[in-house]
Amino acid sequence: MRFALLSRLPQRRVLLWQELLSAALDGAPVLLGPPHDTPDPALREKVEVLFVADPPPGSFADWPSVRFVQGLWAGVDGLLADPSLPPEVPLARLKDPAFAGVMAEGVATHVLSLHRQLHRYRAQAALRIWQPLAQPQAAERPVGILGMGELGMAAAGVLASLGFPVMGWSRTGRPVPGVEIHTGEDGLAALLARSQILVNLLPLTDSTAGILDRARLARLPQGACLVNFGRGGHLVLPDLIEALDSGRLDHAVLDVFEPEPLPQESPLWEHGGVTILPHVAAVTDPRSAARIVAANAQRFLAGQEPDGLVRRDLGY
Amino acid sequence: MRFALLSRLPQRRVLLWQELLSAALDGAPVLLGPPHDTPDPALREKVEVLFVADPPPGSFADWPSVRFVQGLWAGVDGLLADPSLPPEVPLARLKDPAFAGVMAEGVATHVLSLHRQLHRYRAQAALRIWQPLAQPQAAERPVGILGMGELGMAAAGVLASLGFPVMGWSRTGRPVPGVEIHTGEDGLAALLARSQILVNLLPLTDSTAGILDRARLARLPQGACLVNFGRGGHLVLPDLIEALDSGRLDHAVLDVFEPEPLPQESPLWEHGGVTILPHVAAVTDPRSAARIVAANAQRFLAGQEPDGLVRRDLGY
Repeated sequence: MRFALLSRLPQRRVLLWQELLSAALDGAPVLLGPPHDTPDPALREKVEVLFVADPPPGSFADWPSVRFVQGLWAGVDGLLADPSLPPEVPLARLKDPAFAGVMAEGVATHVLSLHRQLHRYRAQAALRIWQPLAQPQAAERPVGILGMGELGMAAAGVLASLGFPVMGWSRTGRPVPGVEIHTGEDGLAALLARSQILVNLLPLTDSTAGILDRARLARLPQGACLVNFGRGGHLVLPDLIEALDSGRLDHAVLDVFEPEPLPQESPLWEHGGVTILPHVAAVTDPRSAARIVAANAQRFLAGQEPDGLVRRDLGY
Repeated sequence: MRFALLSRLPQRRVLLWQELLSAALDGAPVLLGPPHDTPDPALREKVEVLFVADPPPGSFADWPSVRFVQGLWAGVDGLLADPSLPPEVPLARLKDPAFAGVMAEGVATHVLSLHRQLHRYRAQAALRIWQPLAQPQAAERPVGILGMGELGMAAAGVLASLGFPVMGWSRTGRPVPGVEIHTGEDGLAALLARSQILVNLLPLTDSTAGILDRARLARLPQGACLVNFGRGGHLVLPDLIEALDSGRLDHAVLDVFEPEPLPQESPLWEHGGVTILPHVAAVTDPRSAARIVAANAQRFLAGQEPDGLVRRDLGY
């Protein structure tokens, strides 16, 4: 009993993960923790590897022998916010090319929809208005991407193939072919000033929380659009609403919120300048991801360096 | 005075076309016909080449010396329906790679939007429902394209690069790399049976009018979506509405109607299963098209075969 899975996802989904993980671990059993099962302490104390996707807060304390924690998602901000996560245990996040591909597809879908002004045609149709709008070419519509890791690079590739000029902003400034890379606060200002569509794919860390605030949003060109596929904590919502209501910004596609689900009483639901998605920009596909995280756990147990190790000092 | 331009487009747009055409014709003057100008008969009778985009019906009779008619659009069904068009005069339609690229971008925009279920998330958000939906992969979502000419081939290329399996249906059955080509009525039935998203890019001719009728729509898989970027005359609207209302089909994106603009009183405007666009799937960009049609006219005047000659027997 070396493996366990901790997740507050719906039971059907957790059982699918359990089955696929076990299969990818050559049939090794994978225990389920709360809320879906309550294993005997004697079994629980033998577990060395925890697979986690939104585990119950505080639950790491119940697994005293754990030596490795493998997230099933790309984001680990929720895990790092849990004080019960032992600071010395290595934590890895999901690095799945299929997941990056799904995220890139989601970015392409919404960048194209904004570019082709579907939100405006929808608003016109609701008023029975037949009115073609001036349509810029993709080549005239620079897209800025915040975060140029695996996800940002995949998104940049698809957008460039569709003809959009692509700029990227990253901590490291590492070059990416075909993408104009910016770094630092000055680089961010330069990228924002030319991003007609801004796509946020950053991890949520101490240095990126609240990054999309009034001052940053004010640097975007008149009529720019925002796609937030990072985390709700990146965006200062009142500042966004103000920019939309004043007509400075045209439209925002929001997939992530703080908290989630977006509360019933939120005025965002009825804001005409906002498209609301229920955190579906990219959903991990267990069929590809289970093999990847299982192999990563086996690499750790064999004494090798796992992929996607989180640097606690950077927060991702 | 060898050239004239006939169009009911708004004056600003017609003046732009006139300027760009004249520049592309080495500064040769381009007369404007009604409704924007009424040239002297002595001038009018010298015109050998007519550029046309939605000309006033019956107006070809006013240009007795015309030897070549060049459409500024890809579709020529409107021109062929005008009895004043002399049957012996060669007629060419626009063949512009930039136009095909814009059409492919429009197809990609709406296929991705349907694939990622934006219409469902929009309907959910209107009811303040936070509910992630099962999301198939692009590889699991075959797209069928009706019409595999220049436009269909460009659309197929972009869709294939996004990971969709692509099938095409054409009159000729000419092979296209990476696309499963079908032809004939049996081929159409086979393509429809597997098209989870069906994209119509056919020209409107005697043999394609009304092609999307109850029997054809009934062959589509349960829950399929339709994108009609061809002509309103391809689609039997009551049959589509019936298929949507019964839940057989999921959603339709309609860019073309019969007549246009879609009348104010049409119930389509308020149908939740339909996205209405005001004929903007691909708008000719005069910046690229003027050079192409001017060069084509000069080719004709130099005794060479122009590009995009319409076969009257086929209707396109």
